[in-house]
Amino acid sequence: MLHYGACYYPEQWTAEQAKDHIPLMRKAGVTVVRMGEFAWSRFEPELGRYHFDWMDRVIQDMQKAGIATVLCTPTAVPPQWAVVKYPQILGMDRDGRRRHPGSRHHACKNTAEFQTLAEKITRELAKHYGAMDSVIGWQTDNELGGSNTTRCYCDNCEKAFRDWLIAKYGSTDALNEAWGSAFWGFEARQWNEIPLPRVMPTGNNPSHWLDYVRFASDTQIKFHKMQTDVLRLLAPKQFVTHNSMGRFDEIDYYKLAKHTDFLSWDNYPDAHGDPMMSSYEHEMTRSHKGSFWVMEQKSGPGGSAKDGLWGEPPDAGAIRRWAWQAVANGADGLCFFRWRAALAGAEQYCHGILDHDGTPRKRYSEVALTGKEFAKIGPQLERTRVETKIALIRSFDCLWSIERQPGAPGFRYDDHCFELYRAVKRTGHPCDIVNVDTDLNRYKVVLAPCLTIVDDATAQSLTAFVKGGGTLVLTPQSGARNVHNRMFDTPRPGPLAELAGVTVEEIRAYHHGQTHEISFARGSLIAEVCAVGGWVEALNCGAAESVAEYRDGPSAAKTAIARNAVGSGQVYYLGVYLPREILERFLSGLVPVLPIKDIPEGVEVVRRKSAAGRFIFILNHSGERQTITLPGQILDLLTEEKVGPKITLSANGVLILKG
Amino acid sequence: MLHYGACYYPEQWTAEQAKDHIPLMRKAGVTVVRMGEFAWSRFEPELGRYHFDWMDRVIQDMQKAGIATVLCTPTAVPPQWAVVKYPQILGMDRDGRRRHPGSRHHACKNTAEFQTLAEKITRELAKHYGAMDSVIGWQTDNELGGSNTTRCYCDNCEKAFRDWLIAKYGSTDALNEAWGSAFWGFEARQWNEIPLPRVMPTGNNPSHWLDYVRFASDTQIKFHKMQTDVLRLLAPKQFVTHNSMGRFDEIDYYKLAKHTDFLSWDNYPDAHGDPMMSSYEHEMTRSHKGSFWVMEQKSGPGGSAKDGLWGEPPDAGAIRRWAWQAVANGADGLCFFRWRAALAGAEQYCHGILDHDGTPRKRYSEVALTGKEFAKIGPQLERTRVETKIALIRSFDCLWSIERQPGAPGFRYDDHCFELYRAVKRTGHPCDIVNVDTDLNRYKVVLAPCLTIVDDATAQSLTAFVKGGGTLVLTPQSGARNVHNRMFDTPRPGPLAELAGVTVEEIRAYHHGQTHEISFARGSLIAEVCAVGGWVEALNCGAAESVAEYRDGPSAAKTAIARNAVGSGQVYYLGVYLPREILERFLSGLVPVLPIKDIPEGVEVVRRKSAAGRFIFILNHSGERQTITLPGQILDLLTEEKVGPKITLSANGVLILKG
Amino acid sequence: MLHYGACYYPEQWTAEQAKDHIPLMRKAGVTVVRMGEFAWSRFEPELGRYHFDWMDRVIQDMQKAGIATVLCTPTAVPPQWAVVKYPQILGMDRDGRRRHPGSRHHACKNTAEFQTLAEKITRELAKHYGAMDSVIGWQTDNELGGSNTTRCYCDNCEKAFRDWLIAKYGSTDALNEAWGSAFWGFEARQWNEIPLPRVMPTGNNPSHWLDYVRFASDTQIKFHKMQTDVLRLLAPKQFVTHNSMGRFDEIDYYKLAKHTDFLSWDNYPDAHGDPMMSSYEHEMTRSHKGSFWVMEQKSGPGGSAKDGLWGEPPDAGAIRRWAWQAVANGADGLCFFRWRAALAGAEQYCHGILDHDGTPRKRYSEVALTGKEFAKIGPQLERTRVETKIALIRSFDCLWSIERQPGAPGFRYDDHCFELYRAVKRTGHPCDIVNVDTDLNRYKVVLAPCLTIVDDATAQSLTAFVKGGGTLVLTPQSGARNVHNRMFDTPRPGPLAELAGVTVEEIRAYHHGQTHEISFARGSLIAEVCAVGGWVEALNCGAAESVAEYRDGPSAAKTAIARNAVGSGQVYYLGVYLPREILERFLSGLVPVLPIKDIPEGVEVVRRKSAAGRFIFILNHSGERQTITLPGQILDLLTEEKVGPKITLSANGVLILKG
Repeated sequence: MLHYGACYYPEQWTAEQAKDHIPLMRKAGVTVVRMGEFAWSRFEPELGRYHFDWMDRVIQDMQKAGIATVLCTPTAVPPQWAVVKYPQILGMDRDGRRRHPGSRHHACKNTAEFQTLAEKITRELAKHYGAMDSVIGWQTDNELGGSNTTRCYCDNCEKAFRDWLIAKYGSTDALNEAWGSAFWGFEARQWNEIPLPRVMPTGNNPSHWLDYVRFASDTQIKFHKMQTDVLRLLAPKQFVTHNSMGRFDEIDYYKLAKHTDFLSWDNYPDAHGDPMMSSYEHEMTRSHKGSFWVMEQKSGPGGSAKDGLWGEPPDAGAIRRWAWQAVANGADGLCFFRWRAALAGAEQYCHGILDHDGTPRKRYSEVALTGKEFAKIGPQLERTRVETKIALIRSFDCLWSIERQPGAPGFRYDDHCFELYRAVKRTGHPCDIVNVDTDLNRYKVVLAPCLTIVDDATAQSLTAFVKGGGTLVLTPQSGARNVHNRMFDTPRPGPLAELAGVTVEEIRAYHHGQTHEISFARGSLIAEVCAVGGWVEALNCGAAESVAEYRDGPSAAKTAIARNAVGSGQVYYLGVYLPREILERFLSGLVPVLPIKDIPEGVEVVRRKSAAGRFIFILNHSGERQTITLPGQILDLLTEEKVGPKITLSANGVLILKG
Repeated sequence: MLHYGACYYPEQWTAEQAKDHIPLMRKAGVTVVRMGEFAWSRFEPELGRYHFDWMDRVIQDMQKAGIATVLCTPTAVPPQWAVVKYPQILGMDRDGRRRHPGSRHHACKNTAEFQTLAEKITRELAKHYGAMDSVIGWQTDNELGGSNTTRCYCDNCEKAFRDWLIAKYGSTDALNEAWGSAFWGFEARQWNEIPLPRVMPTGNNPSHWLDYVRFASDTQIKFHKMQTDVLRLLAPKQFVTHNSMGRFDEIDYYKLAKHTDFLSWDNYPDAHGDPMMSSYEHEMTRSHKGSFWVMEQKSGPGGSAKDGLWGEPPDAGAIRRWAWQAVANGADGLCFFRWRAALAGAEQYCHGILDHDGTPRKRYSEVALTGKEFAKIGPQLERTRVETKIALIRSFDCLWSIERQPGAPGFRYDDHCFELYRAVKRTGHPCDIVNVDTDLNRYKVVLAPCLTIVDDATAQSLTAFVKGGGTLVLTPQSGARNVHNRMFDTPRPGPLAELAGVTVEEIRAYHHGQTHEISFARGSLIAEVCAVGGWVEALNCGAAESVAEYRDGPSAAKTAIARNAVGSGQVYYLGVYLPREILERFLSGLVPVLPIKDIPEGVEVVRRKSAAGRFIFILNHSGERQTITLPGQILDLLTEEKVGPKITLSANGVLILKG
Repeated sequence: MLHYGACYYPEQWTAEQAKDHIPLMRKAGVTVVRMGEFAWSRFEPELGRYHFDWMDRVIQDMQKAGIATVLCTPTAVPPQWAVVKYPQILGMDRDGRRRHPGSRHHACKNTAEFQTLAEKITRELAKHYGAMDSVIGWQTDNELGGSNTTRCYCDNCEKAFRDWLIAKYGSTDALNEAWGSAFWGFEARQWNEIPLPRVMPTGNNPSHWLDYVRFASDTQIKFHKMQTDVLRLLAPKQFVTHNSMGRFDEIDYYKLAKHTDFLSWDNYPDAHGDPMMSSYEHEMTRSHKGSFWVMEQKSGPGGSAKDGLWGEPPDAGAIRRWAWQAVANGADGLCFFRWRAALAGAEQYCHGILDHDGTPRKRYSEVALTGKEFAKIGPQLERTRVETKIALIRSFDCLWSIERQPGAPGFRYDDHCFELYRAVKRTGHPCDIVNVDTDLNRYKVVLAPCLTIVDDATAQSLTAFVKGGGTLVLTPQSGARNVHNRMFDTPRPGPLAELAGVTVEEIRAYHHGQTHEISFARGSLIAEVCAVGGWVEALNCGAAESVAEYRDGPSAAKTAIARNAVGSGQVYYLGVYLPREILERFLSGLVPVLPIKDIPEGVEVVRRKSAAGRFIFILNHSGERQTITLPGQILDLLTEEKVGPKITLSANGVLILKG
């Protein structure tokens, strides 16, 4: 079933204000609402006194209208009585300032009192709603770590961090060795000598820091798992998800997603950003379990809680296009944020489907139209999945290592991952976003950008993949560090050197826009010349053959890109960051050719498949009319007419074909 | 009487350094000095021991020279013994950092010990000086809230805030309802559950915040009133004022000014800013009581206490021009800051009339020349007032609401108010700056820009004004919020919808410079076309007629500006921010025509009137020679010759005509 | 002897990793290593238990290879057991945040426990190594005050500050008088009423602040002296130095250097900066004692501990050029930072001679080549010195006063000093950088830029210098303040007015790029015209003659530059900041003419002399081939051939001539 609905906050509306809400939902095709994530102070107005009847009534009213409920554990905001009773539950930022109440995410998840209260409210809710039919599933908390609160610097976290380290290292000697604490005399001989990486005069030890940010991520995951465990026990028939934040970079979602039925996320596209960014995050969220929900989908002018700006209005047609883009990329459920704009509180300018006055206007009409389409197409998509032969390894260890030490000014690991992702998408292929420990054998091509931290298991997995016929693409900074974020004492790319057939002779980082030219000596780009800069690596080819060379500068005639044939596969080592267009052409030479070719920039083509059929989604994000050539005539599911081979999409146009 | 003088700090000069001061003052026409606002540590060198004789001598010496004294309560800086004895009197900033001593404004006005000490020193001063003839009045404290200290985040303020809320709401239920605390589960059920809006992970509740900033403003006002009450009792014949800071935005000066005889302010014009800004602030300060003083008037290169910069030098003639600009706009007294540049302390680069070495130079000569003119013209201005038929509503509730949530990037309420003010001034009219509760019936035209917060009384007052024949101009964002900063659940402009005869169909905020064109369909600007952007509202006309429409974009053909005839008056609702030149022409079509026409940009014309006569001030701020046509020949009071109808003013030129 | 070596951290390498280190050092010509500055936690792994044997072995292995050791006191980082046992030793920043451990420089030097621990480890090291032959000297701590930690705001510092003030002023009356505390009522009547200048609402009292920053500097110097005293006693045959940070501006190095045999510094040239900057800092460091070491010399891509950037690679030849530039300017020792790049810790990207993998590559080869040259030339340089007739007065009091109050936006005292230094260097002269109390009689020309703080002794010293035939150059802001940072109550340049023969009539600071033209009326630049701005002073000539005048603006026809003949010397007072090219020509007219003329921009010529001979270093920093004309044929010491008179240097070229 394809779920379609909205985030709804019954506690914020008077009966008078709410009286048209459910009838309008029905008319708009809403099948599900998400509720409750900020209602702790209503559910438990004082310590140990629980009130659920107000929510029961809403759930029942929804059920009568054919609308199911996803219920949230309300732990994103503790009630104020809890803050007053246990002031130590307030987290602390890196500057040593408490995270004061008044907004959200202020509680520290390593504080015992908060853990107890959160476990208790989860248990009570699960007991009460765990067997209620129209409650189909649970969302734990909301946007864990949001507003950059993953990393807490309070004393309880310091103690918990030490426990985490004891469990990991066993002895301070092992820790000192792992961290290289001899540097700047940071050795610990008692566990209580290990501090959090708070504000210090200059840079912290990157090994210390990496363990801390892993610990902070684990803290959130542990909190989520505590709730999941309760829900599994008391609500065994309802699904459990968490609505994550796409490429949010403070929590290892690979670990978190293991304790869900599927992961969800919040999609607030930026009209001035790259339209493929949403797909990147859709695929990222889908890759954990093969399916996902968009639990919050922008449905109007956004608006920041913090700066009080009224966001830009979506184009007519954009709301519908975003909804179908989610489904195209594998979503099985989608809730708009939010049903109606809030009259009070920090998100007054985060618009809903309805404006503050509750009047249905243009956005409601578009949602209702899309609701009809969902109702029509949804049943046919049952059990369909997005399948792909391409994977991109995106590792939180690498991300965090490069967050601490970007190397080149302004370099961001995730931007580089997205750049590769984008190039894959231009070929028409979906792309799984996976962790280093994923079984790669189902893929033909694996991109492993900036794989700076590499352990032996990863090196072996990549080697096996290549030997088995796969194509692996490595980019700069690979194989530099061990899992403790220490540099290897062997030439780069360290444990990947044999696989790649190269070693790095010299790295040159440029901070003032300097560039070099490289020229391709073989392969599909032979004789091409392009400029590279920022961070360039001169390679020594061992077993590998040189594919591209520097034409100028101190590394002139040295290899910039090498290819190594290993077993029945191959490895490309890119010592440079290729310009967008060259990168696209380079990757398009590596991936299988698809039936729909020459997809214009800004148009997205995705397929969902099952034994029962194959659905092609064509989405025009470009803002302009676009023409595409299909391999033949295909059934348009919305109009129920055959279209093609030449088809034209208007701006914001969406085609759903069955072929 | 027109008072003319300087701020003087006798405690900072040795007898040797000071020996020429009073003779030079006399020569310069000084009639008044302001003294004492930072002298608490001299007045009370230890707890309960008072020393006034040193000041007595100065006041007597001044009196002998014919110079009156305005004395200040010295509460802007507590003595260091008080800080050591009661460290809790130090305020706290939003980051939780104490406001440490060493500069000024560091005391928290909600701390009992400070309140007691401040009341005591005020009482002792009032007892000692309350009957002294040559002390003509009092200034309370100095620049209350200066250096952004209005808002204190200490524990004493938290307690006082709760008391303030108890008095306002009576019950936490009423507060929760008013604030919409259900949003993000912020409900309070005990008063001690309400925190200050300290540093929190994301944005605070705008209702919580608005009450907090009102409370912080009230705290300063209460402190001022405490002093005023003492002075009224013990010094009943002397006036009480406070020197405010023009458009400083943290204190509701409407409330504060009620507890004064007149308000004063500090005028430090920026040579690179708009010359009308000083007039805006003069009129703002005058509008409270019909008269005002400039208590500190820039008299040389300024200089910031904080960044140690030496300000730009005023042009020759600018000091005189600024002095007459104040008088033209209604000032009855003016003190230059400061008599002589400080040899020590943070304001070494805040220049006085005299340089550090005490040598009279160019600036002294200009002050002395102006002193002569003041002596000549002053007596004729007795009991004259600036009168106007135009008012601009500038509400602190709206200002604070928009401070928290500006809507469009970079939008500032006060800048928009000034833009309208400026357009009025171009027509030659003065403009009162008034609060929402002002009796509007004495005006012909009322501008109510961005009146986002509206209560029923205001809506009724505006309606009565229009029905009675007035012209009201509303601009975007009107009627969006109730007095608790919650959004209305009815279409915009909410309680003003009936009066304006429109509702807002859609708001589009643009963050990337996008614009639309509108064209005028009727009125004085018929057929004009102009570009609008930033924030645009598409209007549905009810009773109103469309005056201008969008020519392109998603709102093409929708109304941008509407006019509603109501009773014998009319309301304009501007859904857009008009470009400067169009705005000027639009407003000039609404206000009465004056005898002096076609005033060049940068030239200001103002009138002071009484039963005895009518004085026209013409000030050339433009930096260039300018020509103006008078309605005939008029007496030039400075030269005592008839001039006109065509007159020419040099750069910085000032004409004072009697006609 | 000319020492040549590297900074080495034996505690950071396993035996396996280190096995080639000493052989490679020998091959590279290394004669000295610096060790131990971060090894406290190894030397004293728990309180009072000392371990030196591990270092003994390294020193012995080095000695066997002919490599001497400079040993450091390891007090830059206290062991973590000390932080846990005495948490109060952590310093505090201005925001009141502790300087947390994990990097370096976090200990407060006014905390008794830290002082005791630091004295004890110094004593134990000195006892152990004080008589060891191959340990030739000591470096105290490392980069005292680094990472902006000179200024600590903890309670211990507040107490120590009061003690410092008691010793200086004796009474609070004297202090109040000196500080002008009457301003903003800041008077203290008990010593405990004096706070540190912490975060306060607006600017602090500049006198308070100047004493505080002097105190903070003295704190570091006292800490250094404590260590020096111990080392003098227990290690009398070994030299004592400190590696300072060139133009680092928080410690008065004149005072610190008195307690050394010579000062050292850390040279990390910026390839995109001015190549003369390193020479400026070399000469600054040399001027204390006539000789100096570069204790850390960049030897690869730099890299910031804090931001994790990989620095730009040095050009081929730059490492060698930098090494010889140090020697040319008087260095007698040079250690590259660091032998091999760190595998762990915050400085992973601060490269060494060897990369992380220990493989000798291009940089090693260049270091080894330079090592051979050092071995060849070094012995001939014995007892040679850089001598000059030109001095530039660079005063920390002036620097700190202008740090607090720059006057013109963006003005920095040190940048202005460098601008004058640079102009001197263009003439081929070295330039001593000296304090106000230096005996000036050995110089012909003294530049005293922005000598804003002047006491009588300085005025007398300058007068005596001029009367004796010297040429003195003063620039704007001279003679404005007494030693307490109070403004003089006499016309500028205060105590220098008689010497300069001028007073300042008006100062005009411009913030918006305004300029005026001046024209030269006499002297070598007669009839030249140039634009000046930022800060201009109009001068009244007393005894002086006008050299240049304003051509426009309010000071038109007033003097901008004056010359006063006094005794057999002369004083120039520059009321303006001259543009670079005019300044160079102005100064070149004042200094003696040298044999090598017309030195191209970017080429440096320096001489070292002794009774035994005279060595000319010519360094091409310009990045391009350059040609120079020698006064005849001269011996090239590296090739052992005569060269000239016309010679050509390649980019990065170095010539060492004996002539």
